[in-house]
Amino acid sequence: MSWTITAEDIPGLARGAAVLGTGGGGDPYIGALLAAQALRQHGDVTVVSVDEVPDDALVLTVAMMGAPTVMVEKLPSLDEVVAPVHALSASLGRPVTHIACAEVGGVNSTIPIAAAAALGLPLIDADGMGRAFPELQMVLPTLYGVAASPLAFGDEKGNVGVLNTVDNSWTERIARVACVEMGCSVMISGFPMLGSQAREALVAGSLTLCREIGDGIAHARETNTDPVQHTVRLLGGLELFAGKVVDVERATTTGFARGRARIENPDTMLELFFQNEHLMAQLDGRTLVTTPDLIMVVEHDSGEPITTEGLRYGQRVRVIAAPSDERWHSADGLAMVGPGYFGYDIPSHRFDGRVEGLAEEAA
Amino acid sequence: MSWTITAEDIPGLARGAAVLGTGGGGDPYIGALLAAQALRQHGDVTVVSVDEVPDDALVLTVAMMGAPTVMVEKLPSLDEVVAPVHALSASLGRPVTHIACAEVGGVNSTIPIAAAAALGLPLIDADGMGRAFPELQMVLPTLYGVAASPLAFGDEKGNVGVLNTVDNSWTERIARVACVEMGCSVMISGFPMLGSQAREALVAGSLTLCREIGDGIAHARETNTDPVQHTVRLLGGLELFAGKVVDVERATTTGFARGRARIENPDTMLELFFQNEHLMAQLDGRTLVTTPDLIMVVEHDSGEPITTEGLRYGQRVRVIAAPSDERWHSADGLAMVGPGYFGYDIPSHRFDGRVEGLAEEAA
Repeated sequence: MSWTITAEDIPGLARGAAVLGTGGGGDPYIGALLAAQALRQHGDVTVVSVDEVPDDALVLTVAMMGAPTVMVEKLPSLDEVVAPVHALSASLGRPVTHIACAEVGGVNSTIPIAAAAALGLPLIDADGMGRAFPELQMVLPTLYGVAASPLAFGDEKGNVGVLNTVDNSWTERIARVACVEMGCSVMISGFPMLGSQAREALVAGSLTLCREIGDGIAHARETNTDPVQHTVRLLGGLELFAGKVVDVERATTTGFARGRARIENPDTMLELFFQNEHLMAQLDGRTLVTTPDLIMVVEHDSGEPITTEGLRYGQRVRVIAAPSDERWHSADGLAMVGPGYFGYDIPSHRFDGRVEGLAEEAA
Repeated sequence: MSWTITAEDIPGLARGAAVLGTGGGGDPYIGALLAAQALRQHGDVTVVSVDEVPDDALVLTVAMMGAPTVMVEKLPSLDEVVAPVHALSASLGRPVTHIACAEVGGVNSTIPIAAAAALGLPLIDADGMGRAFPELQMVLPTLYGVAASPLAFGDEKGNVGVLNTVDNSWTERIARVACVEMGCSVMISGFPMLGSQAREALVAGSLTLCREIGDGIAHARETNTDPVQHTVRLLGGLELFAGKVVDVERATTTGFARGRARIENPDTMLELFFQNEHLMAQLDGRTLVTTPDLIMVVEHDSGEPITTEGLRYGQRVRVIAAPSDERWHSADGLAMVGPGYFGYDIPSHRFDGRVEGLAEEAA
């Protein structure tokens, strides 16, 4: 069933996307500004479900690549957003029919809305991850054999490149070094897919879920109910911890914002490890949840999402977890985005909404 | 007047090109093997003078980009050599008619011969520099406003990219980081030019000059005359120094082979500074010759060229200098390839074949 995104829908969508973005995907408010401007300028965007996409559609993902710490200072123009799509379409020799989100996350759920508006194309109610991950090959389409390339990238200066690589990890490697050289933030468009492939490989319903989470946070505030519990229920998740941010270590290296954060309450300490996104949560040294499952940090009272680059000393936050798309727990999925890939020498275990010793009402 | 390159011509051409390559452009013998193989497999290559190129010809340069220290261990296949040309031709939407050398220098004079043979295209008797330089924007066509991009690059694994950049320095920057990530050596094709542009912007007659230098070295050996004096006369140059290599410092950083070499004789010491190519020669601390003029190191007796990565302790060598194409001494030329660009805080002065205190017969 198709629906329409108007400028008024953007704040809710961006808020929900930033929750699902597990700390990554850039500042939701920055991307929301751009999307709202695009909708006002070019008209509303039609969102279609994966079931409505014709088999022979040509679907491209559109995203911002780089360090979120840099993205917040380099909001792209609409020209910059669509330049890689035009370059890729020219390289493919046929017109694009649908835009899709590579991931959910602040900027990377709203940038595709801006692209769809500026290009006058429908947006698919889906994304490639069901969350955010730091590297471009980390999407479910990779598991289905969809090539990331041809993939186009472009910067605010007008430089554009198109890659054709032997596998999706090489697309990431070459695009990443180009991204770093071009100022640590570029627009990309890639993963050309037929409609039939998109239906199989994407996570269906992501944008609807983002809207429900975002609207729920706003509604809870109006009705004076707990926004965090609403989010937790929507995701089949669990609140892991509530406390105060007491330490954040952060470094922008090789194009990523890497670091860790410590959150304390009178009894215990939760430590979060991130690389653009939160990848592991440890309670007093005990691992509770790891990538690919979702670890999200929200403001204690408002339930507003906090990105990894937005974490600050003294913030009172709650940390929630939710199961990832189950396909990430396949052997190939874990090889691509499991703890081992990110250098954490711990076994991956599947989070099913429970953690031993933590009751759902513990929060 | 057109002429033909056969496999038998390759050693002489490669030898002469390595002399003019001022230490850069990679090992001449490696590139010669590939060119000779291509000629045997695909037939001889026709070389046409710039005057014979039609105004509406589509000319592309073909070259190897990267650190010569790596190139010698990664000889490309013919498929790898032509892949960027095919990618670029597809991007331009029209067939290539002529191949040109971006620079003269070991690999980068013979690789275009291999490309021309494999593609069945004529090669232009010219190059973009009249010598070798370490960065891709450093060609005379840049001074004439010819864009380096669209420029294609590819590696031995099959990864290919096509760049469209806002200026030639950005082509260099992005291609360079991709090159480093792809293993410090890639094949590139770029600087699409009309025949009329090629005639104006290239250094005419380079391949003929390479052949004359190379053949002269072989002939001098057969006739027991001095090969170095023959080279010096052909170039209107000067022998600066004769001595023994006593020290070579070398580091492969950010995709370049950077370093310096000290050469001594009983009376004095000559120091050479290089970044892939020799860029400055100092005699007991006094600057004799600087980029853009040519500084070349050859074996003392045989007159065979020695590349910067081939410099070894104990070699007995002679160092010769020759004036560059005069267009490099324009203000724009010096801004691009003068001593200041490479970080040497010395004024550029034009080498006219003489150095005060050094007579032409001093050697």
